[in-house]
Amino acid sequence: MSRTVYVNGEYLPEEEAKVSVFDRGFLFADGVYEVTSVLGGKLIDFAGHAKRLKRSLDELQMANPVTEEELLEIHRQLVARNGIEEGLVYLQITRGAADRDFAFPKDATPTIVLFTQAKPGLADSPMAKTGMKVISIEDQRWGRRDIKTVQLLYPSMGKMMAKAAGCDDAWMVEDGAVTEGTSNNAYIVKGKTIVTRHLGTEILHGITRAAVLRFAREAQMTVEERPFTVDEAKAADEAFITSASAFVMPVVEIDGQAIGAGAPGPVTARLREIYLDEMRKAAV
Amino acid sequence: MSRTVYVNGEYLPEEEAKVSVFDRGFLFADGVYEVTSVLGGKLIDFAGHAKRLKRSLDELQMANPVTEEELLEIHRQLVARNGIEEGLVYLQITRGAADRDFAFPKDATPTIVLFTQAKPGLADSPMAKTGMKVISIEDQRWGRRDIKTVQLLYPSMGKMMAKAAGCDDAWMVEDGAVTEGTSNNAYIVKGKTIVTRHLGTEILHGITRAAVLRFAREAQMTVEERPFTVDEAKAADEAFITSASAFVMPVVEIDGQAIGAGAPGPVTARLREIYLDEMRKAAV
Repeated sequence: MSRTVYVNGEYLPEEEAKVSVFDRGFLFADGVYEVTSVLGGKLIDFAGHAKRLKRSLDELQMANPVTEEELLEIHRQLVARNGIEEGLVYLQITRGAADRDFAFPKDATPTIVLFTQAKPGLADSPMAKTGMKVISIEDQRWGRRDIKTVQLLYPSMGKMMAKAAGCDDAWMVEDGAVTEGTSNNAYIVKGKTIVTRHLGTEILHGITRAAVLRFAREAQMTVEERPFTVDEAKAADEAFITSASAFVMPVVEIDGQAIGAGAPGPVTARLREIYLDEMRKAAV
Repeated sequence: MSRTVYVNGEYLPEEEAKVSVFDRGFLFADGVYEVTSVLGGKLIDFAGHAKRLKRSLDELQMANPVTEEELLEIHRQLVARNGIEEGLVYLQITRGAADRDFAFPKDATPTIVLFTQAKPGLADSPMAKTGMKVISIEDQRWGRRDIKTVQLLYPSMGKMMAKAAGCDDAWMVEDGAVTEGTSNNAYIVKGKTIVTRHLGTEILHGITRAAVLRFAREAQMTVEERPFTVDEAKAADEAFITSASAFVMPVVEIDGQAIGAGAPGPVTARLREIYLDEMRKAAV
């Protein structure tokens, strides 16, 4: 059965969900996006994603075609129409269609697209029990990774490099320190301390990252937001990643070397549990 | 009157020229492009663009949906159908539509889109007589600028920064040296020597750059392919840019400082003349 996709005010069968070839999202990667998880048919941390979306749009001087209330309603409509119990809602806003010019168009109408992806078993992923393997690669992305743009070619290439190495993802390294994973924030645990890259233009300001760090601190865990190296990661007791769709996911190997006991660790497991519990409670 | 646009084998009115919202060009900037100029209804350096297109596709392990002969035929069809005497043909190939996943899809069919832009007076631009003003900005693009991808958001932002400063374009600077303009290669002239950044992953391997340097050497001019600084540019006798649509265009000011006499110089003018003469002769 065909999914229903939202495009500029219309709910369409996915086969009919199209944008102009003149859309600046297609020609210039001039667009931003968000991915919100759905658990039990409800949206996880919708407010966090809506807030970051506004920030991304503001940073690019791009108009927001919808209010937060309208956006929530579209998310809920798509979840209902597509019968999503566990899965994702993907949202993209671009500067719209205009005759091709590097300069921003003066009068383009923003394009807004939303679609769902059903992911049965999302919260009960087998990988949460086995852990994932990562490789390290050079971070070759642009300088404003704090804006969640669709310039995702390098992360996509990084994912393929990881697959070619028999691994699940790649951690990107710049000036000797890990920035983040291809579509997630990266963490290590040493003793009782959780270490993750500080916020800046070098990494995405993860919505899940913010929630997990808040829960960690509430649980009296020590959090250090600072750069860390691959060597430091290899010597850590645990490692994990966070993202809106992976939640908290253990990393058990980096560049072929086992981390800690080579199995998901207790701090990671506890954070995943807290995160899922709390976010399910707050889901809308 | 509506333009005719080519999309995946069909010639369509531009209003109907659309791609799926699941196209990886739209979701991941997973696509490459070329722009070929048209003068006197003929294509300028088509072979050069076709060759670079193949290189870009190969670098991204992306399939080429058309042969060079087919591509030439589509270019010519669009030029004829849209009555282009002077203007551009824009070509974009993406990895195609697939359910959203950072990993490359196994079975997607590449998307191919071509459209024209009429630019009457392209070869007789007033700017060739007055020269253009540029600002310098930090180069924040990704690390593989030698692949001509549609990840053009930063160049687009750079163009807007230039406009906000009352200028025409921005030269990007990395590690103290100029890489290139937002959509062109950058040059300075000191004495009889033309200096331009050497090829590498830091800049686009301009088709016009290759032709202009060949013509310069044939005319016994000295060419140095090496990094140069903004200070060196400010102290130069002349400066210019090259691109497939601007050809050879003088730069007369950088960061508010006049270059040389503050007017287009003789080396630049000569190179523009040679380039246009030779390329018109070889146009197809």
